[in-house]
Amino acid sequence: MPTDICFSFSGLMQRGGNTGPHKDGWGITFYEGKGCRSFKDPLPSAHSPIAELVTNYPIKSEAVVCHIRQANSGAVCLENTHPFVRQMWGKNWTYAHNGQLADHLTQLKIKYHIPIGTTDSEHAFCWILDQLHIEFAEKEPDEKVLFSYVAKLCERINQLGVFNLILSDGDHLFAYCSNNLHWITRKAPFGEASLIDAEMCVDFQQVTTANDIVTVIATRPLTNDESWHKMSCGQWHLFKLGVSIACGQTEAEERIPPAQTF
Amino acid sequence: MPTDICFSFSGLMQRGGNTGPHKDGWGITFYEGKGCRSFKDPLPSAHSPIAELVTNYPIKSEAVVCHIRQANSGAVCLENTHPFVRQMWGKNWTYAHNGQLADHLTQLKIKYHIPIGTTDSEHAFCWILDQLHIEFAEKEPDEKVLFSYVAKLCERINQLGVFNLILSDGDHLFAYCSNNLHWITRKAPFGEASLIDAEMCVDFQQVTTANDIVTVIATRPLTNDESWHKMSCGQWHLFKLGVSIACGQTEAEERIPPAQTF
Repeated sequence: MPTDICFSFSGLMQRGGNTGPHKDGWGITFYEGKGCRSFKDPLPSAHSPIAELVTNYPIKSEAVVCHIRQANSGAVCLENTHPFVRQMWGKNWTYAHNGQLADHLTQLKIKYHIPIGTTDSEHAFCWILDQLHIEFAEKEPDEKVLFSYVAKLCERINQLGVFNLILSDGDHLFAYCSNNLHWITRKAPFGEASLIDAEMCVDFQQVTTANDIVTVIATRPLTNDESWHKMSCGQWHLFKLGVSIACGQTEAEERIPPAQTF
Repeated sequence: MPTDICFSFSGLMQRGGNTGPHKDGWGITFYEGKGCRSFKDPLPSAHSPIAELVTNYPIKSEAVVCHIRQANSGAVCLENTHPFVRQMWGKNWTYAHNGQLADHLTQLKIKYHIPIGTTDSEHAFCWILDQLHIEFAEKEPDEKVLFSYVAKLCERINQLGVFNLILSDGDHLFAYCSNNLHWITRKAPFGEASLIDAEMCVDFQQVTTANDIVTVIATRPLTNDESWHKMSCGQWHLFKLGVSIACGQTEAEERIPPAQTF
């Protein structure tokens, strides 16, 4: 069932300049059917009037991608603010990256999907779309063929640095872990949860029905009283309608990220 | 100079379900440098909490495209809500259409830029991008060559019905008139203006500097005490940094629009 993300977003937005250092902009994309809408701001989420609106506005969605940015590649400006959204195969593709890449300009050559901003992140997204276009042309393949191929592309990008990825086409949510991704699936019997970054707890039993299933994926867990799965280096998961429908492991070497990304 | 559009938007949003019948969703895209952000809602703008935020939030921009929808082709849903934004040549292209087309599915064949929703409007946008890709490939031409070619494409689309268009790449704002577009350029000496759709007037002299230049384009004038230019059937204008830098006339036959579009 489509759900709102007011609870999770209340915690995450605090990390953008309050409980965390990711103060260089934020963005969120909600899918509703095949359409999506994004809210973006190069301001810190903890102090953004638009973030406040999103916190309080219960937009129901089957897939949401949210990002708070700590700039390392590319200036702080709107065109460098995640998530990035582009169209392919009659779908909106939404992309958010945590980490940092090197040598992407020489190693990931782009022909068709030209970046607008100057981040390593958007460059890698455009390269992924280029590679999908080259491999599959105008015909979108079966979901498992497609996302297994995306995982191979991630493996290659990850060799250039740290590449934690969330990618969605609205129907699927694909997560690739370089060094820092956690996920949790909430379903009946529901319990309580307390945010780490804000004084807020929720009893999911009061706000759900027995058939609801929701998965949340984040670089660091958002709650301190639930059991989050930590993904391993090089692992990927494909989620659909709230549950993992496929996963795999690519070859990847764990890197020690620079201190400021914590 | 980048300017906010709080005044104009205050009037326009009233037409979405209050002073006008365009109650089937609304959207607005603000450019900031090469980046842009959109706010969209399939709800009537006159009653939308997001529209209220936009009215009161002074986002400064060099180019803004806003649309309120009266659905005639395609259901009322997010993927059918204007403006449509797509990327080409490392730029964000924003498109809003007023009017209605027939036979576009057979007359405007699409190969590369596949629509996400089901409107005639998005279909025509995708066709324009396809044609630009076919004509100019990976190399964006000179601005006058480009937009003269866009005008020719508009002429062809306009043969299928009513096609009032606003198209922007952030640097330029292109307007094509099928039957219903008005524009006004405000510059020093500034005067006062009163909205038609809301009890609001502004003395632009109080909120501008001598070098400010702003052009507003709308299907119907937004103020009742200024002189708006009415565009003729088949005419186009190319605006840049607030002024018209080129215009032309295509062959077009004026059509009587269906009564409900007034």
